[in-house]
Amino acid sequence: MSLTTLIEDSRGAIDADPAKAAVGFTVTGQLVGTTEVAVSARGHTLTVDEPRALGGTNLGANPVEHALIALASCQAITYRFWAAKLGIELDSVEVVATGDLDVRGFFGFDDGVRPGFAAVRLTVTPVGPELVERYQQLADAVDAHCPVLDLFSNATPIERTIVVTA
Amino acid sequence: MSLTTLIEDSRGAIDADPAKAAVGFTVTGQLVGTTEVAVSARGHTLTVDEPRALGGTNLGANPVEHALIALASCQAITYRFWAAKLGIELDSVEVVATGDLDVRGFFGFDDGVRPGFAAVRLTVTPVGPELVERYQQLADAVDAHCPVLDLFSNATPIERTIVVTA
Repeated sequence: MSLTTLIEDSRGAIDADPAKAAVGFTVTGQLVGTTEVAVSARGHTLTVDEPRALGGTNLGANPVEHALIALASCQAITYRFWAAKLGIELDSVEVVATGDLDVRGFFGFDDGVRPGFAAVRLTVTPVGPELVERYQQLADAVDAHCPVLDLFSNATPIERTIVVTA
Repeated sequence: MSLTTLIEDSRGAIDADPAKAAVGFTVTGQLVGTTEVAVSARGHTLTVDEPRALGGTNLGANPVEHALIALASCQAITYRFWAAKLGIELDSVEVVATGDLDVRGFFGFDDGVRPGFAAVRLTVTPVGPELVERYQQLADAVDAHCPVLDLFSNATPIERTIVVTA
């Protein structure tokens, strides 16, 4: 099934039953080493770990790198979908995401420093046969509809439950 | 090296040279299939993909799941570090992260719907021999210092560059 067909079919299904638009995603992480975390998401498993300089054994990318992985891959896939939706030919797209972190926030050395990224830079290189203006139009549509760019750019309400059994 | 030693050594190094607190993380994503993205982060490689229902071939967790992976693993690792810092024994911790997404935002069916998560729920289960109050104290310290929780909870400035060669 082409992406344009998928988009049209989704539109029809959601117009008929708006509840179909609601999707839930769940991920489980279990600390299994000093900083090694075994993660499971819809049957996909992977290991998150810190580099040795941060006390880990470097068995995988670390949490903030996974946040950048989420952003870079979401941009790439949103380019694919919106190219299909706008009828723009897209041969490939490369996304480089860089984040600046001041570890004084994480370590609690300075509570005036935020623990997360102070700034993120994205460099996106779409490749295809269309005029430059069309890819600029595509980029604007992507940035208005990319789920993980929205997550980075805006606050998301989080509800936290701590379960401690005495 | 124990985590308490690592924290003390980091403090000493950063007090001596504050520039040492600045760390940069970079990730590259390349669209190599319909929705398949080959990702590289500091030598670690993995595949991000969409499930078949979203036009992909399900070769890996999708971007928003990677955002939840980042959050769950960051919580787990921050529990480890702050347990060491606060002198709280921690045998293990499990984190379940769930995000609610309304796909009308991503597809552009309704521009009043945000493309990202409308809400995220975290259930954290720390396990260890200490009193319940100590894990509650730990949870509060973690939530004040977890980099990816900060990313979800607050806006992050993003600078975007589009490179199109005619």
